[in-house]
Amino acid sequence: MEQRLSLLTLGVTDVTRARRFYEQLGWQGQETQETVFFQAGGVVVVLWGRDKLAADSGVADAGPGEFDGVVLAHNVRSQEEVDRVVAGAEAAGATVTRAPGPTFYGGYAGCFRDPDGHVWEIAHNPGFTLDEDGSIVLPAFEE
Amino acid sequence: MEQRLSLLTLGVTDVTRARRFYEQLGWQGQETQETVFFQAGGVVVVLWGRDKLAADSGVADAGPGEFDGVVLAHNVRSQEEVDRVVAGAEAAGATVTRAPGPTFYGGYAGCFRDPDGHVWEIAHNPGFTLDEDGSIVLPAFEE
Repeated sequence: MEQRLSLLTLGVTDVTRARRFYEQLGWQGQETQETVFFQAGGVVVVLWGRDKLAADSGVADAGPGEFDGVVLAHNVRSQEEVDRVVAGAEAAGATVTRAPGPTFYGGYAGCFRDPDGHVWEIAHNPGFTLDEDGSIVLPAFEE
Repeated sequence: MEQRLSLLTLGVTDVTRARRFYEQLGWQGQETQETVFFQAGGVVVVLWGRDKLAADSGVADAGPGEFDGVVLAHNVRSQEEVDRVVAGAEAAGATVTRAPGPTFYGGYAGCFRDPDGHVWEIAHNPGFTLDEDGSIVLPAFEE
């Protein structure tokens, strides 16, 4: 597993309210399918419905310690790499919460919890190109 | 507020166990004062005791919705910029959980929650140089 973070998704209860807050701070985002993406240096900060984020990650969103409300994503260059990283994490003691498989956006991903319950998504998203150094640069979304 | 993430700190119950997990994934970290730092592209992923992280951020670590267990940090170039960003966030509807002031590591920082409770630290850390593009490159720590 290469040593980098690709996206950080913040679960929110109201995407419009959350987007407005970050825009008031001076950030500029792009929205598609009720999901807001902010280029934040070499990583991307995402706002997405907390309930959808939990469901998509295979975790329950109830009770203390159940779900941070945040998911760290590590994007890779192929489906095989998703499989390999998730298997490696499981061997290292992670709990797989979503077995690797196709995603609704046309990619391929799996999720696991680290020993403290922090959730990682390992994803291959053909729509998000990785630079040579692994950083993500968002495309311009079609409206 | 510039549009970038500097550090992401994961609160953990056992720093040694957490470090071992990430090292088994192939990551290499540096540790100082029971805190582990991983260079992860242009951002830094940090492992720190969850109780210390909550206390340092001015939030309670109890009950659902109280604390993500994760803190996002945005590092800036001066104390004045810390003050300005925290004041701007408060004006935009954030709750300031730690008023800007000196930190134990010789820096200066303030913390706030966004409308969904996600905690940000705005920090000036003279020990962590920011590149022109705002990305952080960890120094080699003295052992």
